[in-house]
Amino acid sequence: MAINPDTTGGAPRGRPVDAVVVDPTALGDPPGGRDHARSGAARDPARDVPGARRLLAALAGRGISVRTAPAPRGDEDGTLVVTDHTCPLPVAVFDGLAARVGAFRAAFLLHAPLDVEAQRRAEQHQLRLTKPPGSLGRLEAVGAQLAGIASMFPPPLPRPAVIAVFAGDHGVHAQGVSPWPQEVTAQMVGNFLTGGAAINVLARQAGADVVVVDVGVASELPEVPNLLVRKVRPGTADLAVGPAMPVDDAQRALDLGAEVAARLVRDGARCLVTGDMGIANTTPASALIAALIDRPASGVTGRGTGIDDDRLRRKTELVAAVADRARQRHGDDALAILAEVGGLEHAALAGFVAGATALQVPVVVDGVISASALLVASRLVPGVEEGVIAGHRSVEPGASAVLGVLGLRPMIDLDMRLGEGTGAALALPLVEAAARVLAEMSTFDQAGITEKSESDGLP
Amino acid sequence: MAINPDTTGGAPRGRPVDAVVVDPTALGDPPGGRDHARSGAARDPARDVPGARRLLAALAGRGISVRTAPAPRGDEDGTLVVTDHTCPLPVAVFDGLAARVGAFRAAFLLHAPLDVEAQRRAEQHQLRLTKPPGSLGRLEAVGAQLAGIASMFPPPLPRPAVIAVFAGDHGVHAQGVSPWPQEVTAQMVGNFLTGGAAINVLARQAGADVVVVDVGVASELPEVPNLLVRKVRPGTADLAVGPAMPVDDAQRALDLGAEVAARLVRDGARCLVTGDMGIANTTPASALIAALIDRPASGVTGRGTGIDDDRLRRKTELVAAVADRARQRHGDDALAILAEVGGLEHAALAGFVAGATALQVPVVVDGVISASALLVASRLVPGVEEGVIAGHRSVEPGASAVLGVLGLRPMIDLDMRLGEGTGAALALPLVEAAARVLAEMSTFDQAGITEKSESDGLP
Repeated sequence: MAINPDTTGGAPRGRPVDAVVVDPTALGDPPGGRDHARSGAARDPARDVPGARRLLAALAGRGISVRTAPAPRGDEDGTLVVTDHTCPLPVAVFDGLAARVGAFRAAFLLHAPLDVEAQRRAEQHQLRLTKPPGSLGRLEAVGAQLAGIASMFPPPLPRPAVIAVFAGDHGVHAQGVSPWPQEVTAQMVGNFLTGGAAINVLARQAGADVVVVDVGVASELPEVPNLLVRKVRPGTADLAVGPAMPVDDAQRALDLGAEVAARLVRDGARCLVTGDMGIANTTPASALIAALIDRPASGVTGRGTGIDDDRLRRKTELVAAVADRARQRHGDDALAILAEVGGLEHAALAGFVAGATALQVPVVVDGVISASALLVASRLVPGVEEGVIAGHRSVEPGASAVLGVLGLRPMIDLDMRLGEGTGAALALPLVEAAARVLAEMSTFDQAGITEKSESDGLP
Repeated sequence: MAINPDTTGGAPRGRPVDAVVVDPTALGDPPGGRDHARSGAARDPARDVPGARRLLAALAGRGISVRTAPAPRGDEDGTLVVTDHTCPLPVAVFDGLAARVGAFRAAFLLHAPLDVEAQRRAEQHQLRLTKPPGSLGRLEAVGAQLAGIASMFPPPLPRPAVIAVFAGDHGVHAQGVSPWPQEVTAQMVGNFLTGGAAINVLARQAGADVVVVDVGVASELPEVPNLLVRKVRPGTADLAVGPAMPVDDAQRALDLGAEVAARLVRDGARCLVTGDMGIANTTPASALIAALIDRPASGVTGRGTGIDDDRLRRKTELVAAVADRARQRHGDDALAILAEVGGLEHAALAGFVAGATALQVPVVVDGVISASALLVASRLVPGVEEGVIAGHRSVEPGASAVLGVLGLRPMIDLDMRLGEGTGAALALPLVEAAARVLAEMSTFDQAGITEKSESDGLP
């Protein structure tokens, strides 16, 4: 699919950026200390600064020049000056870009393929560890992916992890696609905040935090700790009878998701997890998937919270009809399709995923809501899935369809279909284990262990 | 298969036991305190004492009467008096029985089906939790299983968990079934003790401890912290040319495994994990599986640490030949087959699994070595698999064959084939999560959340 950078992530909000000047102080403390950095002594960011190699590759790929130099006085048109040394360099650059062009477009500009050099170092190191080559299976692949994401070997431990649960309501609820009343969305947000929901329990188990983002709950929610009220609108319109929302609202939700990712990483998160809450939200998820991968609705529509055969039949017919409408009206314009048949949490999660990968932080995705959001993100920022770890295989057929299309294999497959981020939260210890193996296991040399021989076997 | 209790777990070591007298002090502190217990006030162990209901069912099932009464003076023939209040009641009874009849036979006598009442309470509670019914998938089944194992609702958290790595050497190594030199078994034990092996890393990740048990390493190992030297013999004989060991040695290893389980539970473990180390040990594992489930050797023999096609062909031929020999000589006498083609760590792990389930502690099993041991245990103590959680699906085909025969579904499937307990260790957070859901999640009533309606949907 052709991508038009001028519409990806929406129209630029400010002046375009064609050059980035990184003040040496923003590179963090060099071996010689901050004063050494202020002196302007030559440093090679690509070698010396965690994550810089991949960041530079991203900007070069978008035609944006980068140089390290003392911050110029005054602001030049088209030049972004980065001086912030209070956070990792990718975050400082992201924030600067986001202020100019919007958060989702900043994520688009900062996307780069995984760092092949770091991945290869991880793979080579795995071969020297005290175990038969390849015997840790997919844990080894995840370890190499983490190195490629962070542009570092060994990769940093993916902790602290933060689970962001984006909550929204859905006009399509009026079509009877869910047996649960709409007010349960807000009630469950309350449950998240008092710590009694499944995601709270599984987050505690994993040592992760939970943050709830109201991107579109129909009722008013008070801003309290661990709840960000950032309502783009109080729920979508009924997508069965017209567009779920205007494109501008979808764009605002994309930006919000990317902003939340940046805020969490700035606050210290080193792994992000997608979560969702929204009664009826499997319907827009299935519609997005059906529209974007051109699958029959019956292959991507499931029972959600557990509807009966009759409701499933009606839901599937609805998904088929609206996916057809979306394709006819918008072709493969993913942003327009998102606005036509998506949901606010779906849009925010797409932005969150793109933001996390741009910030070089691994993002673990949950079930079908997250999968549909990831699919949208992968159409707006091609290749974004390289930085994604599929937490689990949901029972919902749409989730597996997306994972298949994007070539992702889930870490866990336990017949779950709860959402909230629960499947992804369960996968966190496995992701962390993959990083620990690279950081902590002994090599054959270190442990003084004889290596195998391929030729001395008898007879 | 017919089971003969007189050979299961070997010949009794002491007088048979036909009655158990439990002194009230051994029931632990009642609500009124220890003095209240000493007074001999009436208590119903089946209601008041954790795990007692299943324990009583086990003993009744073996024709052993139980009564609660102050300890009689002197020791009556055939009566076991239990006064130990320093550990859970199942451990106290186990230890008393083990001293009389041997540890594996004690495990046999204490085996009972899971506690259906505790399981049902867990299942009913799951329906009241703030989530769609069944939406946590297999996590819910594991939660109910944990309640059934512990004979308690909610089930205790399965922590602390201890991974017991049983290490042994194998005469069949002389046949060239592995490219690794035999001394690597002892070298890897050293690696476990210094904390650099995969199992150490994954244990730290899971918050579990690692204990290594030398049940049959060919070289001398010093007794150091976290290593139990309990060598039954310094490795097996070459099973390709004759029995791997005498039945007595297999019996001693079974007892040792059950003893280790009891020791760990007495020391506080509330979840046990099977681990193994032994160069060439996938060959006896495959031979045991082929002999006990009458499958073609090619369906249960794999590449182990990663052998090439030629070695795999020779290994498969060897497994086929020795499994045939074992069946011809011993029919379905599992103990004799274990001695004929098994390994010392396989035997000890079979005892460990039986011991853990008798002690009402969940046991998480690892890959093909553990699976072959579990298969042996399930033949000697039918139904033992009810108390077992399959940690992961190993790449080794024999492991999947056993899980299929016993009706177990693994928690994790990540293409691993390392052994040591690594796959089971990775599953520990998932098992713990299953228990936490039951203990910590809010119900609909508690959270004030509206429940779904099956009838009010539109249209």
